[in-house]
Amino acid sequence: MLVLGIDPGLALTGWALVEGHQGGLKLRAAGCWETPAGEPEGERLLRLWESFSELVRRDRPDAVSVERLYFSRNVSTAMAVSQARGVLVCAATLARLALHEYTPNQVKQAVTGNGAAPKPQVARLVRMILGASLKGVPDDVTDACAVGICHQQAAGLRRSLSAGGVR
Amino acid sequence: MLVLGIDPGLALTGWALVEGHQGGLKLRAAGCWETPAGEPEGERLLRLWESFSELVRRDRPDAVSVERLYFSRNVSTAMAVSQARGVLVCAATLARLALHEYTPNQVKQAVTGNGAAPKPQVARLVRMILGASLKGVPDDVTDACAVGICHQQAAGLRRSLSAGGVR
Repeated sequence: MLVLGIDPGLALTGWALVEGHQGGLKLRAAGCWETPAGEPEGERLLRLWESFSELVRRDRPDAVSVERLYFSRNVSTAMAVSQARGVLVCAATLARLALHEYTPNQVKQAVTGNGAAPKPQVARLVRMILGASLKGVPDDVTDACAVGICHQQAAGLRRSLSAGGVR
Repeated sequence: MLVLGIDPGLALTGWALVEGHQGGLKLRAAGCWETPAGEPEGERLLRLWESFSELVRRDRPDAVSVERLYFSRNVSTAMAVSQARGVLVCAATLARLALHEYTPNQVKQAVTGNGAAPKPQVARLVRMILGASLKGVPDDVTDACAVGICHQQAAGLRRSLSAGGVR
């Protein structure tokens, strides 16, 4: 199964293609979509829509995994991120991709075993799990990897539970 | 000029086609797009995208007018509205429609002459300006009419200023 993990944002959206194979998980590709700050909001959202749709056409992921948003501090940031997230969720649904959402705690729990793990620990385990150095990549890419891993693990657990394989 | 005014929301999006003609403004059509609460978010956002795109194909408005969002109270409502708004702004840009944004104060100012006008006064003036009863319609539809009127007035003012017609 190939999972597209996404960390949405208007200026910068991290994405990661996390692949399940016999021996575990590996990173097929990752990167980020940037939109120029000077452009009208609509143009930036449309770029995001098109980048997402192009990747989906090219790499044909089986599912999309994205963090559920929680915000308490900056409402205007929350609103900008939500606009970008809405566009991506809509584009994923149009592409008939299964969409899975996880809370930040569920993501940390899946990656590190600790729902309250600090960010550097999450990043270290993401690198170990995927066997990828992820040197110099923005946090958004690491976060996209983490939410992709989270869905791979949740889906794997669901499969083994329904097969009666966990006691 | 035909302006599509929009009051975005996930559950209910008000829309209004406000037409400029010789004698002033009139309402060509108005209504709202509802999305079922029980459906996944992505399906709801996609319904919104499709309703918007269908109306644009059918009625070919010249511009879209939408309120700039300000929220201070409920962050989760703000985020749901922002997702819906992002989808609509993206769809308008894809349809190559000019998109105009106004603050709530600018809308009230344009409709009533008072940027701090209470809601019932705005509604009363919307009905008078458009010569429409708007009986029994949700607030979202009246708000969509108001933001449509606001852009008609701003565009009219801009035209007469550039023609040197205002002294």
